[in-house]
Amino acid sequence: MSTSTLAAPAAGLREGAFGNATGLVCRECRATQPLGPFYACQECFGPLEIGYDFPAVTREQIEAGPKNIWRYQPLLPVPADIASSPNMEPGFTRLLKAHNLGRELGLKNLWVKDDSGNPTHSFKDRVVAIALSAARELDMKVFACPSTGNLANAVAAAGARAGMKTVVFIPHDLEIPKVVASAIYTNSLVAVRGNYDDVNRLASEIAGEEDGWAFVNVNVRPYYAEGSKTLGFEVAEQLGWRLPQQVVIPVASGSQLTKVDKGFQELVSLGLVEDTPYKIFGAQAHGCSPVSAAFKDGHDVVRPVKPDTIAKSLAIGNPADGPYVLDVARRTGGAIEDVTDEEVRDGIQLLARTEGIFAETAGGVTIATLKKLVETGQLDPEAETVVFNTGDGLKTLDAVADRVGPAATIDPSYTAFTAIGLV
Amino acid sequence: MSTSTLAAPAAGLREGAFGNATGLVCRECRATQPLGPFYACQECFGPLEIGYDFPAVTREQIEAGPKNIWRYQPLLPVPADIASSPNMEPGFTRLLKAHNLGRELGLKNLWVKDDSGNPTHSFKDRVVAIALSAARELDMKVFACPSTGNLANAVAAAGARAGMKTVVFIPHDLEIPKVVASAIYTNSLVAVRGNYDDVNRLASEIAGEEDGWAFVNVNVRPYYAEGSKTLGFEVAEQLGWRLPQQVVIPVASGSQLTKVDKGFQELVSLGLVEDTPYKIFGAQAHGCSPVSAAFKDGHDVVRPVKPDTIAKSLAIGNPADGPYVLDVARRTGGAIEDVTDEEVRDGIQLLARTEGIFAETAGGVTIATLKKLVETGQLDPEAETVVFNTGDGLKTLDAVADRVGPAATIDPSYTAFTAIGLV
Ligand SMILES: Cc1ncc(COP(=O)(O)O)c(C=O)c1O
Ligand SMILES: Cc1ncc(COP(=O)(O)O)c(C=O)c1O
Ligand SMILES: [Zn+2]
Ligand SMILES: [Zn+2]
Repeated sequence: MSTSTLAAPAAGLREGAFGNATGLVCRECRATQPLGPFYACQECFGPLEIGYDFPAVTREQIEAGPKNIWRYQPLLPVPADIASSPNMEPGFTRLLKAHNLGRELGLKNLWVKDDSGNPTHSFKDRVVAIALSAARELDMKVFACPSTGNLANAVAAAGARAGMKTVVFIPHDLEIPKVVASAIYTNSLVAVRGNYDDVNRLASEIAGEEDGWAFVNVNVRPYYAEGSKTLGFEVAEQLGWRLPQQVVIPVASGSQLTKVDKGFQELVSLGLVEDTPYKIFGAQAHGCSPVSAAFKDGHDVVRPVKPDTIAKSLAIGNPADGPYVLDVARRTGGAIEDVTDEEVRDGIQLLARTEGIFAETAGGVTIATLKKLVETGQLDPEAETVVFNTGDGLKTLDAVADRVGPAATIDPSYTAFTAIGLV
Repeated sequence: MSTSTLAAPAAGLREGAFGNATGLVCRECRATQPLGPFYACQECFGPLEIGYDFPAVTREQIEAGPKNIWRYQPLLPVPADIASSPNMEPGFTRLLKAHNLGRELGLKNLWVKDDSGNPTHSFKDRVVAIALSAARELDMKVFACPSTGNLANAVAAAGARAGMKTVVFIPHDLEIPKVVASAIYTNSLVAVRGNYDDVNRLASEIAGEEDGWAFVNVNVRPYYAEGSKTLGFEVAEQLGWRLPQQVVIPVASGSQLTKVDKGFQELVSLGLVEDTPYKIFGAQAHGCSPVSAAFKDGHDVVRPVKPDTIAKSLAIGNPADGPYVLDVARRTGGAIEDVTDEEVRDGIQLLARTEGIFAETAGGVTIATLKKLVETGQLDPEAETVVFNTGDGLKTLDAVADRVGPAATIDPSYTAFTAIGLV
């Protein structure tokens, strides 16, 4: 199917519903099909991703855009008027120079991309914003997801603001903050007896049975996934339109990591950044490290595991994008590593004490992995490195609540204060 | 003392340490004194605020600045190179059009300024950033505060990133998330048996006894307070360089409310916005409403109360800026209102369900007050209105945890799902 055929919108779609996207492309066999509510290849059942016919885009155009992900509208499968439809306005979060953490780890040139500043405090607001646009353009009626927690928060919030019916599925044993921070937005939060992989299977089943349900990470996944490219776009723009040499990214389903790579490549192909080499590293918790295990074993396929880790947001035992993560790490000369839960707690505290950023367990995984990659010589300490914090410590308080607390409880008097030895 | 005398930096200060600030001005008798570690008038013991000699500043200059509060550097008491010293890079948070909430409350033109996107998820990151700069320029050694919670988080985080010793004082009965989200950054969190007003008194005592301690909201308060102007600046800029007609702002010490007014006035005097009338409304919890009570009684002074409310971040019974809040509300034609704890919980849920924003109790106070102001005819439903959400729901989960939760817990099967009646 040629690009021009694909450019014709599918029946019922308004012109420009998906911006410069031209069709859906199979990630396995490269077969194409028109834009629509599809996520599996008609030829080989492989996963689909978005293909584009990009116009010329300049740095200046992007810089003149809104201070959120919509500045990259021409590079996303969303309509040109996206910024004016009700949405959460996520993105353009801080990229902080991390002198203290770099010094601590022996890294010369380290940055933290801090996505905890997003509306519901994780990078999931990015992907959900694209999925919401797709659900709207595809005239779907219910906005839904299976989630390890952060996605639930993001879907429930975005759905509320957009005035859509939302139904959100979570494992029954999720952290309380993530439960409350979903239920506050929606009456239709469903706890499922099982782990994320069970919840995900249930969602696929419902998506198959019910019409008009947009499960953001299941049947509108090709659109959803494109949202993670904006993390790559922002890092490059915030570095002054330059690619970093090394990036460390947490891996659950693996979608984010592969899309940051796709984002970097699109920037190069559009001439927005120079084509300089970069290495992408993935971070997992040891208690759920199927991709790291496959990487270390030299395998191309990922063997599912039963998760057991405090990093619940990364607890996907059967990661949809696992093989593509392996591809990206190997192609770019990166690696996938994993760390213990104790290292995760240390990672959270280290980032907080050095840079004033309170990460959730997923961030602890990523910081601890960064440390391990330096210590094992897999990461070049001289090269410019960006590490991602994709979530927020307030959502996983219990991971550190027994480690930190007041130094003392005193009576309100100067004498009582001097007695505790802080002066 | 003339402006030119004031322009000379005090002994030991580097040139330009406080940007375009020229001196400290008494808010009571207007006596002036040089910039330095002072907070009380030498003539009358009144509180001091910052005076400036502003250069010409254009909208374009500001718009070309960083996407955080440092874009307003010329209007703040900070050096021109502030953006390059280690800081949290707060500000430039979302201003969201609130169609759904507006419809719900019968308001034609409503916006939410959502400061939960700040680094530690409250507006306090703004004031702390200015206080940190002052502490550094004044060569102070310890970065400290008494806090109702959010300030503790912001001070501990900013101090960690800046590599300063931090000591943070909180009431012993603070919400757990606020305790952990301070202790994660610092070993010197001190819980004090008493309420905020007791903690505040202790801080003043220590500030008097110890050299080199910068209590952000006590002895460097004049600098600190200027940070809240940036909320006013951003609202005006994000509206397209225009003042809103009505603003609703939570009141604890009252600093924020008075500085938003100061910010608006500075924009007018600099010709950055037109001089259009605006009304400023203050919001308090009924269980700690000394300013609202004084407003309603027609008093000029505020009678201290003993706080008893779930809105702990607003629980200041003896508000330092209370009289100035009364001035601003009366001068602009606004009002101060208060709401019950039950209304606060309703307010949190209303904002979440309509706009996808999860506010802490302080935000619940403000939304509930907005509702009450409309219902009592104090606020014009036709006029453009901005309501502030200054904090984050994840920090006060308990306020709503018993109201919201999963609709059901089910086995991972389609049959189990259909049985709960969500399709
Ligand atoms: C905070 C956080 N970081 C990273 C990830 C990983 O995302 P992905 O599934 O795209 O690998 C998740 C997934 O839920 C997450 O919640
Ligand atoms: C979330 C929040 N909003 C508003 C305020 C009120 O600030 P102010 O003391 O400037 O009135 C506070 C003070 O702690 C706060 O924590
Ligand atoms: Zn295929
Ligand atoms: Zn005076």
